[in-house]
Amino acid sequence: MEPGDETRNADRIAITRLLHRYCAMLDTMELELVGELFTDDCLVVYGPVERMQASGAAQLAGSLRRLWRFERTSHHLSNVELDFDGPDAARGRSYVLAWHQQPDGASRTLYAEYDDRFVRTPAGWRIAERRQLTHGSDIPWDLPLAAAERRPAPEE
Amino acid sequence: MEPGDETRNADRIAITRLLHRYCAMLDTMELELVGELFTDDCLVVYGPVERMQASGAAQLAGSLRRLWRFERTSHHLSNVELDFDGPDAARGRSYVLAWHQQPDGASRTLYAEYDDRFVRTPAGWRIAERRQLTHGSDIPWDLPLAAAERRPAPEE
Amino acid sequence: MEPGDETRNADRIAITRLLHRYCAMLDTMELELVGELFTDDCLVVYGPVERMQASGAAQLAGSLRRLWRFERTSHHLSNVELDFDGPDAARGRSYVLAWHQQPDGASRTLYAEYDDRFVRTPAGWRIAERRQLTHGSDIPWDLPLAAAERRPAPEE
Repeated sequence: MEPGDETRNADRIAITRLLHRYCAMLDTMELELVGELFTDDCLVVYGPVERMQASGAAQLAGSLRRLWRFERTSHHLSNVELDFDGPDAARGRSYVLAWHQQPDGASRTLYAEYDDRFVRTPAGWRIAERRQLTHGSDIPWDLPLAAAERRPAPEE
Repeated sequence: MEPGDETRNADRIAITRLLHRYCAMLDTMELELVGELFTDDCLVVYGPVERMQASGAAQLAGSLRRLWRFERTSHHLSNVELDFDGPDAARGRSYVLAWHQQPDGASRTLYAEYDDRFVRTPAGWRIAERRQLTHGSDIPWDLPLAAAERRPAPEE
Repeated sequence: MEPGDETRNADRIAITRLLHRYCAMLDTMELELVGELFTDDCLVVYGPVERMQASGAAQLAGSLRRLWRFERTSHHLSNVELDFDGPDAARGRSYVLAWHQQPDGASRTLYAEYDDRFVRTPAGWRIAERRQLTHGSDIPWDLPLAAAERRPAPEE
């Protein structure tokens, strides 16, 4: 942290770049990049069942191969909020709009948020823990995802 | 404003956080947070008729209860531009893609921009005035919204 | 570049503003703003055929008139990544979700990325080169666009 840089802009830029590179990695399917984005012992949870969770970068890269079932994807990241827990740790919340094209040409879009924990390693910032919380999708998803909480409507 | 910080990054981060927290508040329906995001005497205009406008945080929280008619929402904020009018005032323009899921499961998406005025209060930055200008929606909206201006095509 | 500002935040803000103003220009169709956003000798490539490319700001403004065929548009920009090549040059990558409304009221959405080169001119930062690489669209596009690369699925 540079003197006078209480907003920690260099760290914000580096962590936001991680978030964007994850999206680009999925959209190009260059899954060997997982090791540059996640810690070796990362925990990534997309859904409540074991096959929707990954422990470690190697297992994560393997599980993301499920995205080959789509012709194309486009992961649009926004609403990035970062908070620091000391010089080498941070938490983040961001939104993703994930467009997918099926082999039959039809579109399927997922609306979700990433709840992340980041750590600074000797090689730079990495995602240590990611939980995807889903807001919904335009057609029901074909895999079991974890839902974000929404307060139920009050009794009238 | 810190010496040398002519970009006012701390203020930019704080105001952008307001924009994101508004989206999160709607998506979780924690409407009691309105008072942390808006000034007590805020003016919020979603459309040209009185019931699409709110004066004051209390009235705004009440009017946003109309979002209970949806099962879920996801408000994706982007294109954030901020300009400062002195140390304690700012103006902002941002885009929102607001996905809504109806009780029958169907999706309805709104594309709009927020035209905002912010003030710094003793408790931090707040939205003092918000005007939502709508670009359009995938199916006609069920409430009267204010349209953003688009230049008509020239006569050929 | 100010001493101690190794993140070049003022330049990042200025270049990001260019990206946002391009979106706003299309959505309002104020095409006379092209000259404030692009260099006079810019190169802009939307697709592999000549009519989807423009050399110079004047030709670009003329070619963007094709967007009059839509009733409305909304260009949502995200995933902005910038890298500097010296004090007066930069490269950028960003994602765009471009919603279009046809005259019959139907929606058509394009998912793409912008691959840009920026230069600082005496009048400020400008886009010198833009290549749009398309991820896909919900219905097949009516003009020939350049596709972003995606690695083919491995042979099993």
